Amino acid sequence: MPRTITAYSNPLVKHARDLRDKRHRREKGQFLAEGLRILTEARDAGRLPVQVFFAEASAVHPLVQALVADVERAGGEAIATTPAILAKLSGKDNPQAVVGVFEAWETPLDALDRDASSIWLVAERLRDPGNLGTILRTGDAVGAGGLILIGECVDPFSVEAVRASMGALFTVPVARAEWAPFLAWLRAGPGQLVGLSLDGGDYHGARYDAPTFLLTGNEAQGMPEEYAAACDLLVKLPMLGKADSLNAAVATAVMAYEVLGRQG
Amino acid sequence: MPRTITAYSNPLVKHARDLRDKRHRREKGQFLAEGLRILTEARDAGRLPVQVFFAEASAVHPLVQALVADVERAGGEAIATTPAILAKLSGKDNPQAVVGVFEAWETPLDALDRDASSIWLVAERLRDPGNLGTILRTGDAVGAGGLILIGECVDPFSVEAVRASMGALFTVPVARAEWAPFLAWLRAGPGQLVGLSLDGGDYHGARYDAPTFLLTGNEAQGMPEEYAAACDLLVKLPMLGKADSLNAAVATAVMAYEVLGRQG
Repeated sequence: MPRTITAYSNPLVKHARDLRDKRHRREKGQFLAEGLRILTEARDAGRLPVQVFFAEASAVHPLVQALVADVERAGGEAIATTPAILAKLSGKDNPQAVVGVFEAWETPLDALDRDASSIWLVAERLRDPGNLGTILRTGDAVGAGGLILIGECVDPFSVEAVRASMGALFTVPVARAEWAPFLAWLRAGPGQLVGLSLDGGDYHGARYDAPTFLLTGNEAQGMPEEYAAACDLLVKLPMLGKADSLNAAVATAVMAYEVLGRQG
Repeated sequence: MPRTITAYSNPLVKHARDLRDKRHRREKGQFLAEGLRILTEARDAGRLPVQVFFAEASAVHPLVQALVADVERAGGEAIATTPAILAKLSGKDNPQAVVGVFEAWETPLDALDRDASSIWLVAERLRDPGNLGTILRTGDAVGAGGLILIGECVDPFSVEAVRASMGALFTVPVARAEWAPFLAWLRAGPGQLVGLSLDGGDYHGARYDAPTFLLTGNEAQGMPEEYAAACDLLVKLPMLGKADSLNAAVATAVMAYEVLGRQG
């Protein structure tokens, strides 16, 4: 049976709210995900929250009922609460009907199966959580084997990244690694490393060999020369305008679809 | 000569701060843009701010000096101020070195020259300012003739949209129209209307004829059936993952680059 919490000061509310903060996420090894669509996606991917908060008014929704029942069956806790507390948890005036507290996980490089897909996404020093989430969402759409984050990237378990991923955080494996171990892992098997670079050749005529690892550099600076030098191929998207740049998540997506269509 | 303002209560500071609010922007017909890169882009596109705020410490930067001189030469006001006030204006702890107050403008449909480009972007009921700005940035990169916003869209002059556009707001014309007048304008001349729709055919084998008008629907709902029925062609990006969706700005960009590469 769900319990009911209506006090802001309740420790469970405080704990969930604190998960919006990176340090707290790291200490507790947990994170927040919001919205019936994302929580249902998580459930279908085999991840259930340890706690699910839902508005009492939304408990009549059959999908909310099913989710609550699944959480309780798995030993998690279902908590009916007020719209005001949900708004506090989600940091939005117009909160989603459900918010879940999930155990975080790590995927080591060695757990990735490079034969699982012909396309992999790699991003280095990605700073914007919206970009990270959007890249995960694209990764889901193109059937990428996973996203590998190199160096100091934004936290994939941040509220904004989870939200922008629209649930793809639960379906696309995310590994975090430094550059040297990544390169060693990559070169221990087949794989074409393709870097997006303003110094690259036209992306449209290039040959892509599976599995292709698409490397996107930092939003402001692009990738270090050392990384570019290690790539098997450098490509550039044509830019006809005044500015010589594209959003990092957009450039990744255009490349990913090109590779999908052309892989040799 | 720049004047110096160090008081939060100064009416110019208050006015600029209020431009973060949509209602105030509409009343005053002005908006905010931040950052040396974006303001320089604006200047190069022929738009100078009526007021430019800059941190006194950054006045030694030659690009800031040049911008300030240009603003004053054009009859605008240059205001040296504190990092704290710049932070208040930009709503960020780590503010940009310059913030400009610009006069807003409108581009009526009839002012668009459809022969100016072979690709145009059209979005209906776009709700996310980051998506709007990102689509403008992509529009600049692919050399789009402009972005046409249909129906109730987020304000292209919002701080988040301007920021995500990275200056493309100043280089890519933005028109706002209702659906019926847009369709009448479109059909009064050549133009292939291509809609992104889950009911469409594969985008990769399709034929695109210039000028192509790429229509993207609302982030959550896609486009109304009536709009889809009016399209000359409906296309879909392959989605191999669990979720049947892509970010709207990402889908627009993948399509725009496809059209760029394949136009007949």
